[in-house]
Amino acid sequence: MEFYFLAGPPDEDATVRFDVDESRHIVRSRRHRAGDRVQAVDGLGGEYDVELTDADERGVRARVLGSRRSAVEPAVRLTLAQGVLKGDRLAEVVEAATQLGASAIQPFRSARTVGSCGRARVERLRKVALEAMKCSRRAVRPQVGEPVTLEELAARCRDFDQVLVAWEDERERPLADVMNREAAQVLLVVGPEGGLEEREVGLLRRSGAASFSLGPRTMRAEVAATVAVSALMYARGELAPRGKGNPTG
Amino acid sequence: MEFYFLAGPPDEDATVRFDVDESRHIVRSRRHRAGDRVQAVDGLGGEYDVELTDADERGVRARVLGSRRSAVEPAVRLTLAQGVLKGDRLAEVVEAATQLGASAIQPFRSARTVGSCGRARVERLRKVALEAMKCSRRAVRPQVGEPVTLEELAARCRDFDQVLVAWEDERERPLADVMNREAAQVLLVVGPEGGLEEREVGLLRRSGAASFSLGPRTMRAEVAATVAVSALMYARGELAPRGKGNPTG
Repeated sequence: MEFYFLAGPPDEDATVRFDVDESRHIVRSRRHRAGDRVQAVDGLGGEYDVELTDADERGVRARVLGSRRSAVEPAVRLTLAQGVLKGDRLAEVVEAATQLGASAIQPFRSARTVGSCGRARVERLRKVALEAMKCSRRAVRPQVGEPVTLEELAARCRDFDQVLVAWEDERERPLADVMNREAAQVLLVVGPEGGLEEREVGLLRRSGAASFSLGPRTMRAEVAATVAVSALMYARGELAPRGKGNPTG
Repeated sequence: MEFYFLAGPPDEDATVRFDVDESRHIVRSRRHRAGDRVQAVDGLGGEYDVELTDADERGVRARVLGSRRSAVEPAVRLTLAQGVLKGDRLAEVVEAATQLGASAIQPFRSARTVGSCGRARVERLRKVALEAMKCSRRAVRPQVGEPVTLEELAARCRDFDQVLVAWEDERERPLADVMNREAAQVLLVVGPEGGLEEREVGLLRRSGAASFSLGPRTMRAEVAATVAVSALMYARGELAPRGKGNPTG
């Protein structure tokens, strides 16, 4: 059964609303009527069983019958800092990272960035994250930040328990050797198409980051992002059924 | 430096040739001339240093100066059996799997397959694998097979040391619990958009396959394929610099 995205948390009288886009989807595409029971999420980790009370396509209203915390969120809170990519590639990364369980995606600009990421593109990425959340049956909508510079990204490193940088010029250390398996808040940095420069990795290292290699085969930037998130989630036991995680992977 | 793809192995007098597409690329796009030294691969694991002797755009010829086996091939030989996907999604999977080090990609049709994969599409997938090989600086061109039925796929299971099936209805076992870390030849099966049916997984199991879960978050089929190959390669120590693999990952 499909999840629908709530416009906000329940009111005091356990009433919830859906925004105009979602209302139109619920009423026109899914043909729901007042009295139908559906599942909804608030984007903050809450899942709700609701009964539609007003199937107005400008603003569907519903009554909460029951609620719970989502059971599919990873224990690790992973923020993917992704170098801005050309065309629609950033959207691909946002979609895959969301389905893999990332908590946030932070685009950044660096020396070799090609292409831009203005307000319209960020808005589109936020929609992609929302749709990917619903498809993956998550209840947490990953935050997509406004693009920052590499220097701003470095300044944020202190907010995380560990910062990891997938770097194609790292020749010594694989992820398994540098990863702190206990870190609760992890920032994973993946560069743009042309990669990160040595001085940029140096700046991140001075901010506490560890670089690692994804192996000797060169990957397209957006493939590298999905691979890096996959490897990290696997190594943390998050690509496992509930309660069956095996962090020694 | 870019790798160019040879039309075949060297002749007895150490002469190599390039096909017409590659010759045009070398002469027109890259503007190489007789006397230039370039790197070439044969798609079978051989890397060559060659000197162009005849920069004819209908058929460039060159002389082999040196050759070696590629140093970037994984120890595990992984065949990805991928359910046929709609549109260009199979091409995405072929590209990512090639960059991750897969040895072969075998499309298959099953009960929930939507879309087809005729001769023209297979030819296109083979070109995608070739380009991805060059981009990833591999010297092995992954074979892309003609689509088979699920029954034909099951009959081939005996050719592998282990067969693994990523299945969204598997609720017990993660990859880490079912994977044989010593298997030299591995077949990894990922279903189409609608997934595999229980009886299909049953057929594969009776042929020796083990199913595993990628966790509780639903993924689009092509994302699931990249994630499954990533997790397997990571767990086998293949996403690591040469000589630094850590199979306990």
